[in-house]
Amino acid sequence: MDTSRIVALVMAGGSGTRFWPCSRRNLPKQFLSFGAEESLLAATVRRLDGLIPRERVFVITGVEHAALAEAHAGVPAANVIAEPEGRDTAACIGVGALVARQLREDAVLVVLSADHLVGDEKRFRDALHRAATLAADSGAIVNIGMRPDRPATGYGYVEIGECIDSGDPPGFRVRSFREKPDSETAARFVLGGDFLWNSGIFAFSVSTILAELQQHLPELHRDLLTLRDPRSFEELKRVYPTLQKISIDYGVMEHATNRIVVEANFDWDDMGTFEAVARHATVSVGKNLARGDAVFHEAHEVLVINDAPGTVVVSGVQDLLVVRTGETVLVMRRKDAERVKDVVKALEARGLTHLL
Amino acid sequence: MDTSRIVALVMAGGSGTRFWPCSRRNLPKQFLSFGAEESLLAATVRRLDGLIPRERVFVITGVEHAALAEAHAGVPAANVIAEPEGRDTAACIGVGALVARQLREDAVLVVLSADHLVGDEKRFRDALHRAATLAADSGAIVNIGMRPDRPATGYGYVEIGECIDSGDPPGFRVRSFREKPDSETAARFVLGGDFLWNSGIFAFSVSTILAELQQHLPELHRDLLTLRDPRSFEELKRVYPTLQKISIDYGVMEHATNRIVVEANFDWDDMGTFEAVARHATVSVGKNLARGDAVFHEAHEVLVINDAPGTVVVSGVQDLLVVRTGETVLVMRRKDAERVKDVVKALEARGLTHLL
Repeated sequence: MDTSRIVALVMAGGSGTRFWPCSRRNLPKQFLSFGAEESLLAATVRRLDGLIPRERVFVITGVEHAALAEAHAGVPAANVIAEPEGRDTAACIGVGALVARQLREDAVLVVLSADHLVGDEKRFRDALHRAATLAADSGAIVNIGMRPDRPATGYGYVEIGECIDSGDPPGFRVRSFREKPDSETAARFVLGGDFLWNSGIFAFSVSTILAELQQHLPELHRDLLTLRDPRSFEELKRVYPTLQKISIDYGVMEHATNRIVVEANFDWDDMGTFEAVARHATVSVGKNLARGDAVFHEAHEVLVINDAPGTVVVSGVQDLLVVRTGETVLVMRRKDAERVKDVVKALEARGLTHLL
Repeated sequence: MDTSRIVALVMAGGSGTRFWPCSRRNLPKQFLSFGAEESLLAATVRRLDGLIPRERVFVITGVEHAALAEAHAGVPAANVIAEPEGRDTAACIGVGALVARQLREDAVLVVLSADHLVGDEKRFRDALHRAATLAADSGAIVNIGMRPDRPATGYGYVEIGECIDSGDPPGFRVRSFREKPDSETAARFVLGGDFLWNSGIFAFSVSTILAELQQHLPELHRDLLTLRDPRSFEELKRVYPTLQKISIDYGVMEHATNRIVVEANFDWDDMGTFEAVARHATVSVGKNLARGDAVFHEAHEVLVINDAPGTVVVSGVQDLLVVRTGETVLVMRRKDAERVKDVVKALEARGLTHLL
């Protein structure tokens, strides 16, 4: 295909609660580097180099993080789209489609999240190129799926059907999208071999996604079409408050009929939880894991994320998560790590917003 | 009595392991302030003002902490006695007795620890005055005992006998000294009413303690008497390596016959453990306790000692001790808090001495 048709939309929203206290309201996780040299957002954009030039890479984020996103992303300032408020991914992608259409009518939009970790970047670009090509050729909504290596309950799954492209990576019809399963269902999915993880990375032509939005979310589509300039913050401020708040998965993907998934084979993680961070931690002592300086003494299944100079010493405990930044220490059960959002809510309810 | 006979010996030894990481090798607990404006050592000396002038207050500590002790204690530099190595309290008190005898032959030595917390300082001085008077008058070894308010297992006990002075505070013959009891024994001690806590504060005339040392620890006594100047570090370096290493309690107090205990009634704590710190913590939330900034969320029986700027947030856990300094975070079971020494040993065994 003509790769100059490809436009990238990097979704860099996020409120900074999932990785608190590593992430903060004014520093959500896409701006964190997790031990690497560049932030997740910077890596997401840089990783496209060679396939999609920066002038065709758009970053969409909350207005409060727009300046930070511009600094991290390394794209032209005009390519950072500031949302007045979060209205979920359908609105976000709708705006992205309109922005891409401004560049060219036959644009193929590649939608990425700013918080993914990718191991093999060449393979990643190959998969993206394949997805964009299939999207351009078939008019389908194309998803990138990952062969699961464990029965993860933190991801959605894609059930694959007929193989429509036996290349490398191969493409399949999508039979169904499945929400995050319980662990029993996840185990069945992985054993059966017909399920891939839904990476949340999509490709579709602008005309395809706008038609799908019109069909499945007609009000949202109608409201978005009133935008004279989809990059104008003033325009977005006018439209956003009443936009339907729904995810692209629930609103469109689950109802669309022409859907393809590309089975990619690069290392991938969505860095959605402290456990995901743990998978990329550098020190592993028994079943303990640490990023940063930590000492384990008669400790079991403890995860330490130490992001400040100095040491965390854990003795005689089990199943614990200790997160340390320069200002804050969070201690909770490791198995409750996904509930850090509740801790943030509790802090907010107590008026401790200076901690958030 | 003639209070100019009273000489104080403040024992300020300690290796900094019990309160690690609040205490460090180069900053043992007597130099910590535990939230107060002055360190425990500074408070110990200042508390004597009005009873014992600073020129008659001697501080004995390890040579590595002598300079720090001088800075904290506010006594003449010549009054800081540097021990070349720790040889336990019998040696320490023997040296103190010889130093006091240099001032005057009829000196009455009051022995104090640098790590006590005292609530009512007037009563404290009254009790000390009474103890010194009884020591001067009777030639006895006089101990200050505290009426227990709980069956503490962390203190030694004194069994009281005949009342020999019904003043305020009253004095009793000592029937026996008891080591730290188990909790059952401690409960019996407290219920029976015949047991006081051994505060470790003693008073005796110099001639009494030297005679007792000669009788019960003749080798130690002989070696100490070879000191030409008991304040000379060079002299102490010569004698110390071979001195008998034994506590004054085992070596003398348990064997002496003329023993008196003064039942004092000031608030007192020996700040020997993190639990003792907890008793003086400022914030109590349910059964959680904190010194410094802490937030408890669905947490139970958690003790936070936060000595650095910033916040410790504890969620969904039980029975935990979190100690935070600027450099280090220690997480362990609260019920294991007395075992922090083992953690320090483990760190040492791993060569992590920079943490200690």
